[in-house]
Amino acid sequence: MTENRSLKIIGEKINGARKRVIQAIEKRDTVFIQELAVKQVEAGAAWLDINAGTRQSVEPDDLVWLVETIQPVVEIPLCLDSANPQALAAAIQVVERAPMINSISGDPHRLQSILPLVAEHNCQVIALAMNGKSIPELSEQRLEIVHTVMQAVRASGVPDEDVYIDPLAMTLATNAKSALITLETMRAIRQEFPDVHLTLGLSNLSFGLPARSYINRVFLVLAFAAGLDSVILDPLDREVRATLVAANLILGQDRHCLEYTRAFRAGLFNTSGATTGVS
Amino acid sequence: MTENRSLKIIGEKINGARKRVIQAIEKRDTVFIQELAVKQVEAGAAWLDINAGTRQSVEPDDLVWLVETIQPVVEIPLCLDSANPQALAAAIQVVERAPMINSISGDPHRLQSILPLVAEHNCQVIALAMNGKSIPELSEQRLEIVHTVMQAVRASGVPDEDVYIDPLAMTLATNAKSALITLETMRAIRQEFPDVHLTLGLSNLSFGLPARSYINRVFLVLAFAAGLDSVILDPLDREVRATLVAANLILGQDRHCLEYTRAFRAGLFNTSGATTGVS
Repeated sequence: MTENRSLKIIGEKINGARKRVIQAIEKRDTVFIQELAVKQVEAGAAWLDINAGTRQSVEPDDLVWLVETIQPVVEIPLCLDSANPQALAAAIQVVERAPMINSISGDPHRLQSILPLVAEHNCQVIALAMNGKSIPELSEQRLEIVHTVMQAVRASGVPDEDVYIDPLAMTLATNAKSALITLETMRAIRQEFPDVHLTLGLSNLSFGLPARSYINRVFLVLAFAAGLDSVILDPLDREVRATLVAANLILGQDRHCLEYTRAFRAGLFNTSGATTGVS
Repeated sequence: MTENRSLKIIGEKINGARKRVIQAIEKRDTVFIQELAVKQVEAGAAWLDINAGTRQSVEPDDLVWLVETIQPVVEIPLCLDSANPQALAAAIQVVERAPMINSISGDPHRLQSILPLVAEHNCQVIALAMNGKSIPELSEQRLEIVHTVMQAVRASGVPDEDVYIDPLAMTLATNAKSALITLETMRAIRQEFPDVHLTLGLSNLSFGLPARSYINRVFLVLAFAAGLDSVILDPLDREVRATLVAANLILGQDRHCLEYTRAFRAGLFNTSGATTGVS
């Protein structure tokens, strides 16, 4: 087993793909956005992902507004989530702490336009193991893209430890081996690039299936054991957080069970935490 | 990753260590015991563990009564749970289907007294990776015991595929690496004895800790991925079963998501199955 690191959360809720969020952005609803930011920090997020939506023309303004709205009320770095180099460049000008950039990929255009920003501003960066628009089916194909990306990253002067590779996951609805392929890709990346981090957007795996939270939680546990050290998710989901705290304990990261018992006293495990043992 | 097999449940609820069960045994409460048996079968148990408690003098009679009470209402094999060779011998005389015996260990006395019964009656048998009363701390020590046990098993003529090895788990409350040691032991056993099965009593790992169900579920997922193919647990715990169905899907055992969607339609995932994805 890979030596495990602790698992950090990138809070996903301030995302313009969510109707309530894009409405708040359009109305410049400071209170709504600030509350969503603070709640995620209180729930343990280490970064806040901010995505202003996909309206290209106004995205730079919207992303800058989000940064300037959120920054005064939180003390953690932001994760600027955009494929638009202009929006990223504008937002980087107003951030106070070096942000994470979400994301680059094997796509040469994205590498050329975004990587210089990452290097110049000492950002961390999420790199997707894909080219173009579709996720390669095989682990070998994703690894080949990771090689291309890491070559460009190193040439640009960005250190390996600032890179968070997302091995990606296709939905299980169309490929029963999808999770196994993702886990295999993670282990291979860990082996070849020991200093890079691994990250994951959880929701894709369960796309199109019911009761997605169960799939997400089980997959999170297996990915954590395979070397995942950050994850993009909803930190307000108590079941996911409880699972993470339990996984941290089981994977030997929680000496004397301190974090676990503290979470229990804070009520995280709630009522569904009954014993299943013989008693 | 080990090639995964499906994970079968040994229902644990008919255990004389539980107050309600020992009372039912003492009062010969047929209805209570039969209901507990049928409910576990309906929830998917592949075996029913039956343990008559620890009153040596009456254990043979009690175990025989349990067998004769349960057998008419279920169609799955029983798992006779006793350290008492007399009780096991008496119960084996009345079982209709070859049972599983729970358990032998590296203890020479148990090997000598129980293994001949297993061989003579074509039973399956659970073998604990321990001698005497305490669980060895290190994986190497447990493996050494497994070697001793398997030597005796093979000498007795019992085929490897009838053996279910329990690698055992100490509580995380006293050893933060406990789960990692168990998983490591499982992988080593799978490697050295590809035809044996792996089983696990879940409850020990979380002994002394609160909200044990979370720990049990996360550990179950990791053990399944490490090669576990049977487990002793409470099949009436819906959260555990939901986790198992999701793990089965994620580990590539559920083509076309049939088992998963069937469990969803049957209501297994209930209300806590909300998506955690962005939407």
